[in-house]
Amino acid sequence: MKKQVLVDMDGVLADVYSQFIDFEYRKTGVRKNIESLNGILESEAFPLHDEYVNSVGFFRNAPLIADSVEGLKYLNEKYKVLIVSSATEFPRSLLEKHEWLQEFFPFITWQQMIFCGKKDSIKGNIMIDDHPKNLDFFDGRRILFTQPHNALVENELNERVNNWKEIIELL
Amino acid sequence: MKKQVLVDMDGVLADVYSQFIDFEYRKTGVRKNIESLNGILESEAFPLHDEYVNSVGFFRNAPLIADSVEGLKYLNEKYKVLIVSSATEFPRSLLEKHEWLQEFFPFITWQQMIFCGKKDSIKGNIMIDDHPKNLDFFDGRRILFTQPHNALVENELNERVNNWKEIIELL
Repeated sequence: MKKQVLVDMDGVLADVYSQFIDFEYRKTGVRKNIESLNGILESEAFPLHDEYVNSVGFFRNAPLIADSVEGLKYLNEKYKVLIVSSATEFPRSLLEKHEWLQEFFPFITWQQMIFCGKKDSIKGNIMIDDHPKNLDFFDGRRILFTQPHNALVENELNERVNNWKEIIELL
Repeated sequence: MKKQVLVDMDGVLADVYSQFIDFEYRKTGVRKNIESLNGILESEAFPLHDEYVNSVGFFRNAPLIADSVEGLKYLNEKYKVLIVSSATEFPRSLLEKHEWLQEFFPFITWQQMIFCGKKDSIKGNIMIDDHPKNLDFFDGRRILFTQPHNALVENELNERVNNWKEIIELL
């Protein structure tokens, strides 16, 4: 029986930091340096966070995280993969995330997509997520995908990976 | 600790049969009698099923199932309620379902919404659904909400309710 792996979208498949930095630059003329954002929550790093994520195209046009297509393809052959994404807080994101997945990850079927508010009611054996608040409620193997906001998080219950190559080595 | 109740949308909160019958009438001029549809899957009863559910407004304008607002309010005070809806097969439904819930059930928060493909990875103690295929994979208490397509289903593992008044009496 294949193990079930729950894979997050934002910050694991989709490079939302690039979007935040681009949207902020277009809005304010200031381009933040990603290295300066370590240890700062996204909503604090970008005060107009909610405006950006509610904008047309924020999720639909997000760039891919490096090696995420090859990495997810690998996981999808070896495990039972579910894409679990927080989306109901920002309803516009729902269709955009669905279309984005279909474009870049056509091997992921609609049966493998879950768009939710909280992730603590989703069953799985392994969770890959950049948000400690999601991993904290998970009773399986917890894999923290490095993003600036979690750079300073230390929790021995999490295994940290810095990129998709490390996921493939680990799993 | 409150028990967690998973509540389906289509056929439990939203009267999709009314929509199917109306859409069919507008398309073909024939108005099907709901009594004639007992024991027939929705996709067989309405050959243009997929065209209808992909139409603008199919979910957004669905009427309420009788007493569902009062019933869900009752459950939401007594239990931990999650709305779990199959939606990713028909991506247009995602935003429509979200808006519909916000309009008619404003006491349900975005944290309580799950839009998925399959429901077999959602944790709960009680599931209320009109589709036996969803209840069959559920390891908690299974409540089958009567709709024409399930009228002939007999399964002693399910408790059958015919309306929201019966749900309130039962739970």
